[in-house]
Amino acid sequence: MVKTFSTAFTISTHGIGTYEITDRIGAIVRNSGITTGTATVLLKHTSASLVFFENADPTARADLEEFFRRLVPEDAEYFSHTLEGSDDMPSHIRMALTRTSESIPIMEGSLQLGTWQGLFVYEHRRRPTQRSIVVSVVGDAG
Amino acid sequence: MVKTFSTAFTISTHGIGTYEITDRIGAIVRNSGITTGTATVLLKHTSASLVFFENADPTARADLEEFFRRLVPEDAEYFSHTLEGSDDMPSHIRMALTRTSESIPIMEGSLQLGTWQGLFVYEHRRRPTQRSIVVSVVGDAG
Amino acid sequence: MVKTFSTAFTISTHGIGTYEITDRIGAIVRNSGITTGTATVLLKHTSASLVFFENADPTARADLEEFFRRLVPEDAEYFSHTLEGSDDMPSHIRMALTRTSESIPIMEGSLQLGTWQGLFVYEHRRRPTQRSIVVSVVGDAG
Repeated sequence: MVKTFSTAFTISTHGIGTYEITDRIGAIVRNSGITTGTATVLLKHTSASLVFFENADPTARADLEEFFRRLVPEDAEYFSHTLEGSDDMPSHIRMALTRTSESIPIMEGSLQLGTWQGLFVYEHRRRPTQRSIVVSVVGDAG
Repeated sequence: MVKTFSTAFTISTHGIGTYEITDRIGAIVRNSGITTGTATVLLKHTSASLVFFENADPTARADLEEFFRRLVPEDAEYFSHTLEGSDDMPSHIRMALTRTSESIPIMEGSLQLGTWQGLFVYEHRRRPTQRSIVVSVVGDAG
Repeated sequence: MVKTFSTAFTISTHGIGTYEITDRIGAIVRNSGITTGTATVLLKHTSASLVFFENADPTARADLEEFFRRLVPEDAEYFSHTLEGSDDMPSHIRMALTRTSESIPIMEGSLQLGTWQGLFVYEHRRRPTQRSIVVSVVGDAG
């Protein structure tokens, strides 16, 4: 019997960096009772993004952040959208280069992810803030 | 009662830039009668892409375009796929760096998006053209 | 009558490059009997990714690979995550810049893709390896 389950949650971020939400999504799927189907995750913001990344070694995430700091530097001389500060336009571009929604197959009641594959909110703004994530699960509760 | 609804539409683009389709997707979801579930949007092209972006200030989108113009310049000396012109290979690379499909949770009959979060077709070719978008909605008709 | 179908498969990769899986996904959808709905594909790795690309001219994919070789060079002096070799950290960054999951609408029993639009596993590691792909299909069996 196919059914749907939807919910939302927020996380607090405290500066540029990656914040893992894999366990939160896994708990939502278990709570839904859906054992086969698809979980869809969307971040409701344009100055933060989603990204899958390896979740074992934090140095890998530090290197990712340094890469983006160099690829999309602050205060590029051609930026015209600068009202909210130096991290404003880079945050939108870094979001466009990563992801906003991800969909994860569910089998036998579990998210189908690799052993060291985690889903992260990638915060691109410096100031502490709240980020909203919405999740829909569609599948068989059987 | 879970059901599905699928449809397609085209938009006309007139040069490199972003073209918002959020309202079109919202209307399709309302028309489907599905109140809880997931809407999936796919652009059927490899020289244009989808991207979520802030939809309040057009200067942010102009800065995004300038960023991509510099990151993926035309006429790189190593390009071998050049048959369709200077904007051919950059259009494929810019597509690979943004997105082709996005999935959006639906709650209470509405797309769950942030206040200034819009979904755009990002056209990477200069000549006017038509772009096809396909949408599938799966969920509970309430 | 809406139903779900989930399965997984692996492919062998033999070095950096793109490996098309469009036909595999199409066969899974046909096998599912689902004629309207959504197919979700996820790659269970963080040193390889998914990417839609034009599948007619292999020179376009060679140019894409050269672009990423230059954008994310090996042995950047600031990399600290280097335990698994020179292609370790670049593989994670190239993954973050492309995709991990893609969702494809299904109509009349077929994946809705453009004529030259193929889905590829983008392998970022040099050594031959196995990559796992999981697919969930949710929709109406008509």
